Amino acid sequence: MGIIVQKFGGTSVANAEKIRKAAELVIKTVKNGSSVVVVASARGKQTDGLVADALELNPNPPEREMDQLLSTGEQQTVSLFAMALQAMGYDAISFTGSQIRMVTDSVHTKARIKSIGADIIHKQLDQGKVVLVAGFQGVDEHDNITTLGRGGSDTSAVALAAALGADECEIYTDVDGIYTTDPRIFKQASKMEQISYDEMLEMASLGAGVMHSRAIEFGKKYDVKIHVRSSSEETEGTIITHEVPKMEGIVVSGATVQKNMAKITLVGIDNNPGNAAKVFAHLAKAKVVVNDIVQTEVSTEKANLSFTVGTADLTAAQKAAEQIKDEVGCDNIFIREDIAEISVVGVGMRTHYGVADTMFGTLAKAKINIDSITTSEIRISCIVDKDQADEALRTVCIAFELDKPAEKRS
Amino acid sequence: MGIIVQKFGGTSVANAEKIRKAAELVIKTVKNGSSVVVVASARGKQTDGLVADALELNPNPPEREMDQLLSTGEQQTVSLFAMALQAMGYDAISFTGSQIRMVTDSVHTKARIKSIGADIIHKQLDQGKVVLVAGFQGVDEHDNITTLGRGGSDTSAVALAAALGADECEIYTDVDGIYTTDPRIFKQASKMEQISYDEMLEMASLGAGVMHSRAIEFGKKYDVKIHVRSSSEETEGTIITHEVPKMEGIVVSGATVQKNMAKITLVGIDNNPGNAAKVFAHLAKAKVVVNDIVQTEVSTEKANLSFTVGTADLTAAQKAAEQIKDEVGCDNIFIREDIAEISVVGVGMRTHYGVADTMFGTLAKAKINIDSITTSEIRISCIVDKDQADEALRTVCIAFELDKPAEKRS
Repeated sequence: MGIIVQKFGGTSVANAEKIRKAAELVIKTVKNGSSVVVVASARGKQTDGLVADALELNPNPPEREMDQLLSTGEQQTVSLFAMALQAMGYDAISFTGSQIRMVTDSVHTKARIKSIGADIIHKQLDQGKVVLVAGFQGVDEHDNITTLGRGGSDTSAVALAAALGADECEIYTDVDGIYTTDPRIFKQASKMEQISYDEMLEMASLGAGVMHSRAIEFGKKYDVKIHVRSSSEETEGTIITHEVPKMEGIVVSGATVQKNMAKITLVGIDNNPGNAAKVFAHLAKAKVVVNDIVQTEVSTEKANLSFTVGTADLTAAQKAAEQIKDEVGCDNIFIREDIAEISVVGVGMRTHYGVADTMFGTLAKAKINIDSITTSEIRISCIVDKDQADEALRTVCIAFELDKPAEKRS
Repeated sequence: MGIIVQKFGGTSVANAEKIRKAAELVIKTVKNGSSVVVVASARGKQTDGLVADALELNPNPPEREMDQLLSTGEQQTVSLFAMALQAMGYDAISFTGSQIRMVTDSVHTKARIKSIGADIIHKQLDQGKVVLVAGFQGVDEHDNITTLGRGGSDTSAVALAAALGADECEIYTDVDGIYTTDPRIFKQASKMEQISYDEMLEMASLGAGVMHSRAIEFGKKYDVKIHVRSSSEETEGTIITHEVPKMEGIVVSGATVQKNMAKITLVGIDNNPGNAAKVFAHLAKAKVVVNDIVQTEVSTEKANLSFTVGTADLTAAQKAAEQIKDEVGCDNIFIREDIAEISVVGVGMRTHYGVADTMFGTLAKAKINIDSITTSEIRISCIVDKDQADEALRTVCIAFELDKPAEKRS
């Protein structure tokens, strides 16, 4: 009998009624003949409430104690979920991360999974029980509770699916799948039937936000079929899977826009080998996450070095840049906060030409100025003015026919 | 360096301000040169909230899952408490029952402690940390979370004090000690300096309610000095300790009244050996807790069998009595709900005469009718009319000078 892992996020278990709805989805899967392992997050705003409680007592709470505190939210959900299933006539048992030996390293608040006690879960499934596992949490080798960081419950679910050899990992959420782009901006956006891990990673890191990158990386590493679907609608969602030949025919799978970013330019740094490395080592020390980097020579002696950061990191990045400025011979630091990044993603780009052409031509025709361009093997990104971002996204979506299902594009 | 265990109940940690207040008491003890282990309950009404959440999903929630759910309340308190101590400059670490290997049997919702991983705590204390332990909870041999039942955090604290060889177990509460009687009824009640485990057990089971019997039994078994004191006032409280010769001079240490009770009389049962046993075996099967029993012969063939139960058990007790009625040849069942029990307690009764005399005489003089009388080695109890209960208690308190400290009584 196959195993299916089903993950329910905080909004899908926010209250008794929603927990019962989620339990019905579990029962439906059990009736279809699968063994089910449920991974659940903390209910609704419970985690926010606990964080506020902590900050009231300590503006800089110790991370070990934060993990000890926050892990209770998921523990509550899974025990309540088990009670709901039992009330509906299905045997169920809940486990904390510690109880199923979800062993992680000791990096509190962003621990990485090392091993899972799959035998503990198999034993319960073999007895015909639904097994519920508290998401987001693990335990280190010294029995300290750890948490996996943002999107941790997705990671728990995918890791469990891998460890258990599950047929599928279903991620239940408040959207019914992954769209070619953000439907709030381009309302004709089309739901994708499937998407490759690599494309989804580019989409996720660019802010599509349905699933956290780490969970997708895990899925890619262990080849877990991930199914993103709605907890309120019965329709099929989107499958995230390994790349299949059919996908190569699709040149552009999706498009994204990222608005919470800023660009920092170090104007006129000395054009010496190692200067860029110095700058980024200094930024790393200041814990700034750098996105795209562009370096352009302005003369044989001088170059301009630009990079983008999330607006949350801007103050730290600016401070770090000021500190390193003189050492790399920089004349001036220039900051733009009025920018946004438009990207198109598709594994088909590896084998198809002309994507960049179409993108730049389309933006030019719409009189949208491109500040700079970065690319990866399966992605092209353009920095544009923030107030033209939505228009730019829509223009690009129409050019690549992202309002149509993949098989109907010309 | 001596170890002191300090237990804080739910009202003493209900919010951030109260947790900080409790943390100050801990710090004061650390400054006095002791190592401190804190045991804390769930904050304020958290447990009630979780119980309501559970009942909304399952009117008869499975006990294992209830323990899994409710144990989160204490876990939250101790991690927040540790954060507060760290913010105040004191190193601290929190543990769940599972993390300190508070191993219990597998009787969910009322588990009994089997062993404690004292070495885990000693190791942290040796590093100069305050150790916080989630009260009320343990873990069975299969890693299932268990809870210890009503008053469980008191039991956790006393058991930890025993396992660690602590100098003292301080129980912080919202009263400043144990009084000779309930000050809400007899406002001149006097605070006791000390009381023996046996006296406290009689007082606790009779409804004095400051501490749960199991914690006191644990204290008696392992000779743990228990100090009941106020979390808001600095005064010394009451020490619960083993019996010292001085205590024998005190004839009556305290008096109690218990009002939530009913008396069931099986009128005219056959006066055969084994009939009473039949009745009580049947009541036990119905999970009715029987308090006092009185049997009186009314003829050579017939007897009346009376017993008291808590009002919460009355319906079940009545049903059980009806079922067994014919089998024991009972003519009629008679129930009184308008009763209360007045008791006086004191180890000195073992060696002093005249206590019963004084009690009955005092009540007679006050025109309070005594329905029935039961006694133990250190207790005399009288059933009286409920509407005379408060007056009866006050009369008895004055007769035994319970308004004065023990050493000033004549």
